Amino acid sequence: MAKRGETRERLLRTAAGLFRTQGYHATGLNQVIAEGGAPKGSLYFHFPGGKEQLAVESVALSAGEVHTSMRAVDDLDGALALFGEHLVASDFKNGCPVATVALDAAAESEPIREACATAYASWHDVVVEFLVRQGVSVSRAPGLATTVLAAVEGALLLAKTQRDVAPLRQIAADLRVLIEGAR
Amino acid sequence: MAKRGETRERLLRTAAGLFRTQGYHATGLNQVIAEGGAPKGSLYFHFPGGKEQLAVESVALSAGEVHTSMRAVDDLDGALALFGEHLVASDFKNGCPVATVALDAAAESEPIREACATAYASWHDVVVEFLVRQGVSVSRAPGLATTVLAAVEGALLLAKTQRDVAPLRQIAADLRVLIEGAR
Repeated sequence: MAKRGETRERLLRTAAGLFRTQGYHATGLNQVIAEGGAPKGSLYFHFPGGKEQLAVESVALSAGEVHTSMRAVDDLDGALALFGEHLVASDFKNGCPVATVALDAAAESEPIREACATAYASWHDVVVEFLVRQGVSVSRAPGLATTVLAAVEGALLLAKTQRDVAPLRQIAADLRVLIEGAR
Repeated sequence: MAKRGETRERLLRTAAGLFRTQGYHATGLNQVIAEGGAPKGSLYFHFPGGKEQLAVESVALSAGEVHTSMRAVDDLDGALALFGEHLVASDFKNGCPVATVALDAAAESEPIREACATAYASWHDVVVEFLVRQGVSVSRAPGLATTVLAAVEGALLLAKTQRDVAPLRQIAADLRVLIEGAR
């Protein structure tokens, strides 16, 4: 039973990595099987819903991991610097683990769209909690959290495209101004 | 000659629409030919570089059109409302015409990445001009323009995923605060 779980986990992590860097459509199941080092029949055994199920579960897995690491953060600059380090370490391949799939597949698959929307909603909640801890009022925090999340997503996109983390540093400075003003 | 130009233009516009809604990898050349109503051989005649050339030119075409419409805008709320209307009118399919290709193809093709980076740079310039007209200092405008662009890109991504234009309205309010403060 442990081995089965390991194969499933390995396939899921491989798929999550591929979806993150190249999106839904570029990722073939054969690539997931090959890079995951799994036997051919195992993919549909573990994921009877095929690629769509893999995408839904990959988005949820990545969302949960980001959620956990964000909850541990009490410093916006530190969090953005960390995102920048991940980008640079992956040669600007690993941006947001949800955005690529959200843009290239959510319009055609309602389960994938829901998984992406749920991921963003969970990150929004973490940002709200962070802002309240920073002294932002409970009534103001949800709106400002949307702007923080949008700016981070957009800055990751710009940084990946420009191969330069400068946009992450820039939004850090401007978001700090907004947070100060909302206290 | 006019007819040749028309076929080329039609293929390019069809490709640009498909890249925008579904990304680079989901878009097949046969789909571009079929939806563009063009003869089979015409695609490689007009675009000897194939799909990559189509993507580079599509991004440049869309970037130029957005650039032109943005230059006419002297009201951030109005511009964001317009983006929101386009999203709703397309049933949340038409977000940023560059973002999907930037995320799903720029990491693997340097010409596509450069086209996307050039598009964002040209929009950044328009936002700088807009901010200066709004009374933001010339030294402060470039940095703030990066944050504006990031927030707009992120809000379009969130709005598309959530099927709700609320994120665009939210960033409009917060960006107004930043612009006021930078005057």
